[in-house]
Amino acid sequence: MREETVAIGALRLDCGQTLAAAEQCVTIYGTPTADGSNVVLVEHALTGSSRAADWWPGIVGEGALFDPREWCVVGINALGSCYGSTRTSHRITVRDIVRAEMRALHELGFERVELAIGGSLGGMRALQWALDAPERVGAAVVVGAHDHHSAMGIALNSLQREALALDPVRGLRLARKLAMLSYKSEDLFNERHGRRSDRQGRPCFDVEGYLDRQAALFEARMDAASYVALTHAMDSFDVRAGEVFLQLGGTRKPALTFVGITADWLFRPQDVRRAAQRFALRGFDAQYIELRSHHGHDAFLAEPAALRALLEPLISTPVTADIRSSLC
Amino acid sequence: MREETVAIGALRLDCGQTLAAAEQCVTIYGTPTADGSNVVLVEHALTGSSRAADWWPGIVGEGALFDPREWCVVGINALGSCYGSTRTSHRITVRDIVRAEMRALHELGFERVELAIGGSLGGMRALQWALDAPERVGAAVVVGAHDHHSAMGIALNSLQREALALDPVRGLRLARKLAMLSYKSEDLFNERHGRRSDRQGRPCFDVEGYLDRQAALFEARMDAASYVALTHAMDSFDVRAGEVFLQLGGTRKPALTFVGITADWLFRPQDVRRAAQRFALRGFDAQYIELRSHHGHDAFLAEPAALRALLEPLISTPVTADIRSSLC
Repeated sequence: MREETVAIGALRLDCGQTLAAAEQCVTIYGTPTADGSNVVLVEHALTGSSRAADWWPGIVGEGALFDPREWCVVGINALGSCYGSTRTSHRITVRDIVRAEMRALHELGFERVELAIGGSLGGMRALQWALDAPERVGAAVVVGAHDHHSAMGIALNSLQREALALDPVRGLRLARKLAMLSYKSEDLFNERHGRRSDRQGRPCFDVEGYLDRQAALFEARMDAASYVALTHAMDSFDVRAGEVFLQLGGTRKPALTFVGITADWLFRPQDVRRAAQRFALRGFDAQYIELRSHHGHDAFLAEPAALRALLEPLISTPVTADIRSSLC
Repeated sequence: MREETVAIGALRLDCGQTLAAAEQCVTIYGTPTADGSNVVLVEHALTGSSRAADWWPGIVGEGALFDPREWCVVGINALGSCYGSTRTSHRITVRDIVRAEMRALHELGFERVELAIGGSLGGMRALQWALDAPERVGAAVVVGAHDHHSAMGIALNSLQREALALDPVRGLRLARKLAMLSYKSEDLFNERHGRRSDRQGRPCFDVEGYLDRQAALFEARMDAASYVALTHAMDSFDVRAGEVFLQLGGTRKPALTFVGITADWLFRPQDVRRAAQRFALRGFDAQYIELRSHHGHDAFLAEPAALRALLEPLISTPVTADIRSSLC
């Protein structure tokens, strides 16, 4: 594993502003083959980092789906995040984030990735890669995300930013708690917490104690400005417009796999399925598969074994086959 | 219509505290018949008032389901609310709220109500009436509520109280916005707001503008202390325990109608149905019916015509038939 901070120079943003000297934090696990056919780009979600093996065990790491002994896994921290890439107070988009990533990968000599994969905001980023640089992406796997952010998703992010604006510390905690509600399902909460009292004996319900602990963990590792920047980027995401497809023209289109999660109410499985259908109608080799989980949205993090089992049949080891054809 | 503030004396609360001199604000529409068989108790939800005709058009008022020319509709403001009844900083329960209501109705000469009806917290109150005073209630209609508050419901209320604690004014606005998300459905938001820009031209999404307007309306009519008291009361609600039923013994049990709302994710229809089944298993004449609406939880307020159409066949005018038998 090696970590690099890559200078990518001035970066023009969709909002019209320019970042003078942007940097991207990249973590690389394993070694690329000569033809680069074992390179996987792993895109983190709202609060993740380039260290994919840290937050996606079962998917990245020794013995995992993408084992660095076979694969070269490239993790990259999103522009605006607080995990090593350039932070900004400008409004950024998922396209800005991906534009910065393309530059960084180019600087590092990765002209093409066989697979781009991510969940939630990471799924949006993987999809944006496939649309903005189809010649540089073999296939994309979009987990618990689809082709736009919904009104409910926007509203949830907006309320989280409003909490931050009330108080930088307690507001961040409140924002995380609200996010956790949208990442979990009612069935999971009923099963795990129900109406039981706090397990530490405080005068509250267990679910409140759980959210308190989650918020405390979060406070130690995230900052408000990054949270604002990245939730705005999510809100801006919508690749349903025709021009996205027109610009692709006759180029080979990356294969797309959309993974819906049954109990996800932030990115509902029926919406993920519809997105796959929209891409198929536009001539993409797009498929929909489903992760059965009662966890809710963050099943892609909370149930790595189930996700791995779902993805494994789709992904051949780089030695034996071309990923593109196995994903078709 | 007449409004009365009824002194109910000292009120012992479930928390062990006693309110020295409690009052209940009551609004009465129409006139009770000599035998009292036309009396309907209408219970408001979290932020309602005793003036049922104001917030439940189509259900209460001239030409409505409960027309004061035939029915005597009794609206009563919940203990702890800011609409005329005694407010308190003590932790109160739905049982406390109903205990105060029973006293007030007794003071006013209403020894029995043919029907108790309400939605959300109002549904909890109606159900609590049926369980705590079965001899005083002919039937109860519980809309968009069931027999306990879920972990997700508790979490949502907890986060709203946390917002209030951050800032009494902006926190109340944020709490209302969060509540609105739980009252509406994703499908409704997609249809009404989608990803459109704010209709007033501000640099935000339409759904954010909508929530802003809702919050501003709310700020003018609710206070934080009442919000805290009544959300705690909701959180405390759970009438699934055996003792509730044991205490009923061999007394005649009120008929119970549970109304689930198809797109409600705060009180999911499958949970409302299960509650009806639990009561049926306990020997109640309990039925489940469903309000088909894509609004979400507050369809009981937002779609009064549909609710009326659903309830009308179940409710005979007091002149022609006994409500109890018609509800069976």
